[in-house]
Amino acid sequence: MHNINLENVELLITDSLQAVGLKEEEAKICAKNIAFADQQGTDTHGIMRLPIYIERLKNGLFNSKPNTQWVRENETSAVLDGDNGMGHYSAQLAMEKAIKKAEEKGIGITTLYNGNHIGAGACYTKMAAEKGMIGFLTTNAGPLMAPTGGTERLLGNNPICYAVPRREKDPIVLDIANSIVAGGKLQLASSKSEEIPLGWALDKEGKPTTDPDRGLEGVLLPIGGHKGYGLTLMMDILAGVLSGASYSKNIPHLDEEGKTGVGCTMIAFKIENFMELEHFYDRLDDFTSLIVDSKKAPGFERILLPGEIESETKDKRLQEGTQISDSLRQELVTMLDDLQLQTDKYGL
Amino acid sequence: MHNINLENVELLITDSLQAVGLKEEEAKICAKNIAFADQQGTDTHGIMRLPIYIERLKNGLFNSKPNTQWVRENETSAVLDGDNGMGHYSAQLAMEKAIKKAEEKGIGITTLYNGNHIGAGACYTKMAAEKGMIGFLTTNAGPLMAPTGGTERLLGNNPICYAVPRREKDPIVLDIANSIVAGGKLQLASSKSEEIPLGWALDKEGKPTTDPDRGLEGVLLPIGGHKGYGLTLMMDILAGVLSGASYSKNIPHLDEEGKTGVGCTMIAFKIENFMELEHFYDRLDDFTSLIVDSKKAPGFERILLPGEIESETKDKRLQEGTQISDSLRQELVTMLDDLQLQTDKYGL
Repeated sequence: MHNINLENVELLITDSLQAVGLKEEEAKICAKNIAFADQQGTDTHGIMRLPIYIERLKNGLFNSKPNTQWVRENETSAVLDGDNGMGHYSAQLAMEKAIKKAEEKGIGITTLYNGNHIGAGACYTKMAAEKGMIGFLTTNAGPLMAPTGGTERLLGNNPICYAVPRREKDPIVLDIANSIVAGGKLQLASSKSEEIPLGWALDKEGKPTTDPDRGLEGVLLPIGGHKGYGLTLMMDILAGVLSGASYSKNIPHLDEEGKTGVGCTMIAFKIENFMELEHFYDRLDDFTSLIVDSKKAPGFERILLPGEIESETKDKRLQEGTQISDSLRQELVTMLDDLQLQTDKYGL
Repeated sequence: MHNINLENVELLITDSLQAVGLKEEEAKICAKNIAFADQQGTDTHGIMRLPIYIERLKNGLFNSKPNTQWVRENETSAVLDGDNGMGHYSAQLAMEKAIKKAEEKGIGITTLYNGNHIGAGACYTKMAAEKGMIGFLTTNAGPLMAPTGGTERLLGNNPICYAVPRREKDPIVLDIANSIVAGGKLQLASSKSEEIPLGWALDKEGKPTTDPDRGLEGVLLPIGGHKGYGLTLMMDILAGVLSGASYSKNIPHLDEEGKTGVGCTMIAFKIENFMELEHFYDRLDDFTSLIVDSKKAPGFERILLPGEIESETKDKRLQEGTQISDSLRQELVTMLDDLQLQTDKYGL
């Protein structure tokens, strides 16, 4: 493992994105939003993804010079064409616009199409929370799940993300995908030749399996059976159908050819239109106290609020930096060499 | 079992509510919204609940003469004080207002406090769908679940409900609670002296149990572990904390003393602000075809969309009426006698 501080993570990403043609401002926004994931411990959505982003920018599967533009706008809503540029940039614009509409009209709702992977959804909903608003976001993604009763990969692990501000504390942030476990857990079990529990996945014939390799060929299962299927489907309607983006099996994964064409829907609304912000904070403190101060179950020392682990990880990593694996370090060194950037500059 | 047609269900409810003091208009709205649940097969939220509603209206636990009023209003939002009247009435007003705001400004968001049980959430979100809008609703309820790592009943089975309009078909309606199963399934297992699967409930010490009676003393478990906990918590923040309503363990169940004080948050927004409605319908038809026409898993003949069973039940019951159990029939007869209403009038 190799330690790298978060300023260097952000700088490395900025320079790499500029090296493949992004404008400085866009590169900086993307770097901030990618490093956000490393900061809060969502490592699967952080610098680990940079090599594939750079690869896709180089070979034109992502557009490094997008003409990102608002194509429709009303008092409370707007639609953004991301022109297949970096999702971290277009998602930032979409949430900024939703917040601006909410400042003016109380609530704003924006959609994005021709988008790409946006990283950690929390990054954007927290922007709303920082303004005393509640933020909501969903995005769609390459399919991994089947509808209840089906066997085909037709629904992505479309996240549902909310952020709610608190007084003098980090916001409460829920950022969940709808499969019981991520595909990575099956890959891990496979690498250790372990079985997976029944209920995580179906094989490609649609039969329940304990074999991680058969599960990886098949589909992941949603939380709560038909309930998780319904939530995932609804998020694809919001993020995909409504936005004008691609949806369902028309979305390729990042390691496949073709533009992803994914979309987002974001909402921000002012708490002050419902009650004074300080009164809301009082009530929220009381509510969260009822939860976290309640009796613990055997084996538990704490009850956590959504986003609390990420908040603590962020405080720790801002001090101590983040650890990257030797293989990721090597991948980044190779990438930087290829981009003719100096490895030393980033403490790698 | 006894068959009763849905017009009679609605009439019986209207007359009963008027007999305990509700205004005609309010009684009619409540009756329509309670009978909605019977119509679509959500029997637990229909006429089955009328005796407890009537009981609470008679003893003052529900207010039969509420001063339902808007206490705060902005361009896109409004807050309704339900004054502890019937939830089916105040929820109707709250969704009508959200729709009106959406007609004017593209989106409307309303909250309700001092509410009561609203019946089936689908009833209200479908109102938005009928206007070419997407509707969202959440409400909170008496606690049945613990937070992950806890043992106390602190979170209700707070539903998440969305409705999306389709061309010439009933809307897609997702209306789910966040526990893996409803408490009724534990009661059923208990009555048959059967075990329940591990994972449905914890006993009152917070330990997993297969004994339905121990589960009924303890807590229900949410879908997807911490994911369902997070969703339920977020819905209580929206429906309870933000609205000014009661929340968490401060909400009594309907069979307990004290006013429930529950709340709702509702959103309606116009699809036309994002794309032409006909274009949206084309896209949604294409999306749903990808889902329902896909390969079936062993044992499945169809893939259903959320709300499809309810839609088919509605078509059937509008023709054939609904079946009520002998015990419910007897309960209704006793209630009608007590209210000095004629049983014959309703085909009971």
